[in-house]
Amino acid sequence: MSLLVVGSVAFDSVKTPHGEADEALGGAATFFSVAASLLYKPIHLIGVVGDDFPDEIVKLLEKRGIDCRGLEKAKGSTFRWKGRYEGNMNTAVTEETCLNVFGQFQPKVPEEFKKPDYLFLANIDPDIQLDVLRQVKRPRTVAADTMNFWISSKLDSLKKLMAEIDLMVLNEGEAEMLTGKSNLISAAREVIHMGPKVVIIKKGADGAMIVDSSHMAHVPAFPLETVMDPTGAGDSFGGGLMASLAKAETDHTDFPAIRKAVANATVIASFNCESFSIERIKTVTMKEFDERLKILREYSSF
Amino acid sequence: MSLLVVGSVAFDSVKTPHGEADEALGGAATFFSVAASLLYKPIHLIGVVGDDFPDEIVKLLEKRGIDCRGLEKAKGSTFRWKGRYEGNMNTAVTEETCLNVFGQFQPKVPEEFKKPDYLFLANIDPDIQLDVLRQVKRPRTVAADTMNFWISSKLDSLKKLMAEIDLMVLNEGEAEMLTGKSNLISAAREVIHMGPKVVIIKKGADGAMIVDSSHMAHVPAFPLETVMDPTGAGDSFGGGLMASLAKAETDHTDFPAIRKAVANATVIASFNCESFSIERIKTVTMKEFDERLKILREYSSF
Repeated sequence: MSLLVVGSVAFDSVKTPHGEADEALGGAATFFSVAASLLYKPIHLIGVVGDDFPDEIVKLLEKRGIDCRGLEKAKGSTFRWKGRYEGNMNTAVTEETCLNVFGQFQPKVPEEFKKPDYLFLANIDPDIQLDVLRQVKRPRTVAADTMNFWISSKLDSLKKLMAEIDLMVLNEGEAEMLTGKSNLISAAREVIHMGPKVVIIKKGADGAMIVDSSHMAHVPAFPLETVMDPTGAGDSFGGGLMASLAKAETDHTDFPAIRKAVANATVIASFNCESFSIERIKTVTMKEFDERLKILREYSSF
Repeated sequence: MSLLVVGSVAFDSVKTPHGEADEALGGAATFFSVAASLLYKPIHLIGVVGDDFPDEIVKLLEKRGIDCRGLEKAKGSTFRWKGRYEGNMNTAVTEETCLNVFGQFQPKVPEEFKKPDYLFLANIDPDIQLDVLRQVKRPRTVAADTMNFWISSKLDSLKKLMAEIDLMVLNEGEAEMLTGKSNLISAAREVIHMGPKVVIIKKGADGAMIVDSSHMAHVPAFPLETVMDPTGAGDSFGGGLMASLAKAETDHTDFPAIRKAVANATVIASFNCESFSIERIKTVTMKEFDERLKILREYSSF
């Protein structure tokens, strides 16, 4: 099984009630890959960085089983994002976004990556997501994420994309914005009506809901007393999800397999929240992962 | 086992995106009792109504096994509340509160009710909650609810009460307001530090979290596609909770018993949301209850 992700690689400057980080490694494809590679290898990554991007980071990623042959190095600066979290830290306040080389990104899927079994189209212009989908042989499962910006500015393209994917990952606010429904079950049904067979609605500290045409399930967030920095939690969640599906031997449309993958994704996302950047998540062991999964299962079963 | 509740009995006028009700039966003690009586009988109710309160309602409550000998009839009008819900319906917007006879309420616990095994002090002035607690032989389990108004206006009394109870039921916003902690686990620990052995934080459509000094658990809300009116859901939750504890044969400090009681409470609260007033909840059968509990268990286990 091969697993391909397309998305941003960035440097984040983040301030939270617990500290701050300056130009730390970030980006959806980064968080996704580092999280996914705990459970599955190799991960094929497609993204773009500037000529300021250190080779050491690429080496670190490759050492984790993240194949970076699709990580283009362009002339210019790497994507920078600056933001902060306050209060319950559920929503990031963006202070500055410098797309830099990511602004002109036209992903070219390397020949070796053209037959992915699992494809994750991280949050990016839906036209680019569609373009990547066109470049590959139809994968077994295609999942996509998006954000409010594309819902308001490129709804037609997003809908075109949604008609062709299997699994949509959205947060609560995006689900409401996309469907006009404030009830999450109604919103999920509306998303499924737009194409995806399964929708996963991420609710941050309130967990995730999984809906397909005939099932519903809920997985609570792993109970964390200190959230250092939630940046990348959703992308780590995506990485844990897709890696679990790639690893699973059941059919990918099997609802219990997706639910189990969401539980794994939840656990991985919890580690992501315990540090800035990938600091915590890159050190997680399978023993730590298994322990936390056991706690999560006990936490949510009655 | 005897179960006693002290709280309001009222007439509610409510507007939601799905309809409206005018002067329909409401009040914390009402919702609590009607919900509890599905699982356990008798319920001893202490409250006050005005001389405008129809005897037929009292008869209806008594028919359900709600002993209304503690329901005082005072000269004047019954408590009236008017409010509305918008959007995701998570918070009520109060339009009018007429305390009427409830404003001078000085509960007198009848002799026959003075040895409750389980006592629920519904949301009311904490001085009154304390006063009721003083009037009875120390129950096996005392639980209390409160609201933002008392947290800001009578914090000292509330803290005095909290030092004497076993179980505190709060919503998310109240937990944060009371403790100054936006992380719910930290908030729960702080509440426990104030006295209660167990705290249950209600998160509306996002379920409930249960915390004691050595355990944590989460129960999602029952997935409802249409919420007609959430008024009374928290009180029905309290009723389901206490009735389950009274019914259970395990020791009340047993964490699995409390978690099971919260699951039962969640199911009962879901019926509450499906109509205005007690219309739906008064018709629920044990068969319907059991079916929904089974769905909830499947929904949250993996």
